[in-house]
Amino acid sequence: MEHLDVAQFLGLLVVMLSAAKVLGALAQWIGQPAVLGELLAGVLLGKSVGGLVDPKSDVLHVLAELGVVFLLFEIGLETDLRKMLQVGGAATVVALVGVALPFFLGYAVCWLLGLDHLVGIVAGATLTATSVGITARVLSDLNRLQEPESQIILGAAVLDDVIGLVILTVVAGLAQGQEVTTFGVARTTGIAFGFLGATLLVGRLVVPPLVRWVGRVDVPGTPTMLAVILAFALAWLASAAGSALIIGAFAAGLLLRGVPRAHEIEKGVAHLGHFFVPLFFVTVGAAVDVRVLNPLDPGNHQTLIVGGLLVVAAVVGKFLAGYAPFWYTGNKKVIGVGMIPRGEVGLIFAQMGLASGVFDAGLFSAVTLMVMVTTFIAPPLLKLLLLPLRSEPLPREPEGIEQLVTEP
Amino acid sequence: MEHLDVAQFLGLLVVMLSAAKVLGALAQWIGQPAVLGELLAGVLLGKSVGGLVDPKSDVLHVLAELGVVFLLFEIGLETDLRKMLQVGGAATVVALVGVALPFFLGYAVCWLLGLDHLVGIVAGATLTATSVGITARVLSDLNRLQEPESQIILGAAVLDDVIGLVILTVVAGLAQGQEVTTFGVARTTGIAFGFLGATLLVGRLVVPPLVRWVGRVDVPGTPTMLAVILAFALAWLASAAGSALIIGAFAAGLLLRGVPRAHEIEKGVAHLGHFFVPLFFVTVGAAVDVRVLNPLDPGNHQTLIVGGLLVVAAVVGKFLAGYAPFWYTGNKKVIGVGMIPRGEVGLIFAQMGLASGVFDAGLFSAVTLMVMVTTFIAPPLLKLLLLPLRSEPLPREPEGIEQLVTEP
Repeated sequence: MEHLDVAQFLGLLVVMLSAAKVLGALAQWIGQPAVLGELLAGVLLGKSVGGLVDPKSDVLHVLAELGVVFLLFEIGLETDLRKMLQVGGAATVVALVGVALPFFLGYAVCWLLGLDHLVGIVAGATLTATSVGITARVLSDLNRLQEPESQIILGAAVLDDVIGLVILTVVAGLAQGQEVTTFGVARTTGIAFGFLGATLLVGRLVVPPLVRWVGRVDVPGTPTMLAVILAFALAWLASAAGSALIIGAFAAGLLLRGVPRAHEIEKGVAHLGHFFVPLFFVTVGAAVDVRVLNPLDPGNHQTLIVGGLLVVAAVVGKFLAGYAPFWYTGNKKVIGVGMIPRGEVGLIFAQMGLASGVFDAGLFSAVTLMVMVTTFIAPPLLKLLLLPLRSEPLPREPEGIEQLVTEP
Repeated sequence: MEHLDVAQFLGLLVVMLSAAKVLGALAQWIGQPAVLGELLAGVLLGKSVGGLVDPKSDVLHVLAELGVVFLLFEIGLETDLRKMLQVGGAATVVALVGVALPFFLGYAVCWLLGLDHLVGIVAGATLTATSVGITARVLSDLNRLQEPESQIILGAAVLDDVIGLVILTVVAGLAQGQEVTTFGVARTTGIAFGFLGATLLVGRLVVPPLVRWVGRVDVPGTPTMLAVILAFALAWLASAAGSALIIGAFAAGLLLRGVPRAHEIEKGVAHLGHFFVPLFFVTVGAAVDVRVLNPLDPGNHQTLIVGGLLVVAAVVGKFLAGYAPFWYTGNKKVIGVGMIPRGEVGLIFAQMGLASGVFDAGLFSAVTLMVMVTTFIAPPLLKLLLLPLRSEPLPREPEGIEQLVTEP
């Protein structure tokens, strides 16, 4: 029994899930999205405060990743690809400007502070990728996933993840002193978009008959497990093809929307999500070191100044990107704010900067501060902007119709 | 990132879940319980054949243990404690005889073969504990959990686990050359039974109001997550108190049966079970090394002989234990056969024997053979015995009533 102590791990899960549920309910009670409470639960249990949750532990890391896979899978199931493509132009422009502008502003901040060229590039890169998980969860908590602004945000955030992967590959190469070729960049980009396109094309042909065929097996839970297997398989394929796990999970959701028994699948996946998704947000929260926020420690002053400037660059850059599709007449503020949270993606970049030696501990903390602030301000801001938009949430038409059709 | 490769792990989960579902469906198609297919999937993917699934990996081990926790939790939710106590006398006698007889027979086999005193004790001990998971899953697959024979088997198997813990503690002490005191044995026994009794008493008072109180939080999935947290917490407490994880999970199920919204909880837990439980059985299957079965390898002959004798001792011992409650008029064959599978519990004992140096590799393989045969013969035998019992499965009365009461 050289094994990890399972009983102790169950105890840890009890603490994580209870804290997530209690603080999530409290957040809702004061009118905030539940995800804010779950992130806060993570901060309280994380290394910097409670010291219970270590986001680098293998087992927790896997459970958290399963959480983000289930989350993006659920979001995919609720996303109408036609609706998203209708706002595809706007989403693309938001994504491109939302990458370029924060990158430029982040680089400029570092240049003004007299930092190295390479440091500026890596810091700029950490400002580019949106955490689609946080925004999607807030939109889902507020029951607003079907609105055009939400479709633009989700589309742009998914594109952002693809672009983020390209940047990550390029920056990782730069940080290790490799030469970056146009061909290499084009190749990474091509793979990421090619995977999504090929999956959706092939999947449209293969998935519906597969679901019908498996539906003949009369074992409870079979459609849900088929869906989960498909989501995991596409996540794995996406990663093997050089793209991101969550792109594959999202594609699986898109493919399964509208198949026979989609409603049953949605319910089953939701139950799995209730278990795994909070573990993801608690783990993201636990990776945040709040000690860098203490202004009484003089060692934190420079971090707070650099971090503060990066926060401004991060918020302004993404917010203005919301106004980039000038022809779009919807609520551009919502789009800009929806793109603000950096979440786990920013932390992955920062971690890479630290590991490769480009960032020192101070700059790493400053970037962490930027991630923390953008992650925590977006949910309440979104809530504030979305509530007066309409007094009633939109009826979820396509789902309602499906339900009538597929349920006996 | 020094992390375990999550994408690769997702790929492994895809293979494990697909194999479990496909072979489970095939098993059902040829009229066998699905669990048999899942175990076989494990053997095919395990070290001895496919080499893909390593049951000792930390992450898989945790997911598998979550599986057995969810399984026993589900069984607890479906168990009527009053019904089980009505057959409590019979269950106790079955458990006691089912421990004593196989232990004696196993010791006798080793004695006849001229093996050491201590080897006989540890080998005898590996024959004592029933794998409640396998039998419970078969009974559940066949929709027979509510019948009195099933209640006796489950009650006896849970008692068996408690007795097994006491034996494990004692034997581990002996194997390490410690002195075993009556006080120590009494203490371990007292803790195990005390935990179950105290949990049920305190839980009856605390759990229903807690569920009612939490039910006021209007977030989807809240009752299920409360139930999961309770199950994990009791499993953790049981282990901390020196008892077994699964005893705590089973107690949580007993406590939540009949609370308001129990039906909703059952459905939610079932979805989680569909995901985690097959991972448990695949992992149990993967721990089996089928290479010891090859009769063409002369090195296996002694193992096959010793293993064969242990199989006879294991089957005869548990089967006769089914007849021990002489006053009981039900189907005693079913009870005896239901107690046969040793599953993961037997493997834990065998592993301990090997790790402490009491077993050599040959004896370890012989014990593994015994575990393998008892695990694989019980499901088809049970199915054979149960089907002619009644042409229709019993209606699940208490559940039906609950459903009418709690559902709108």
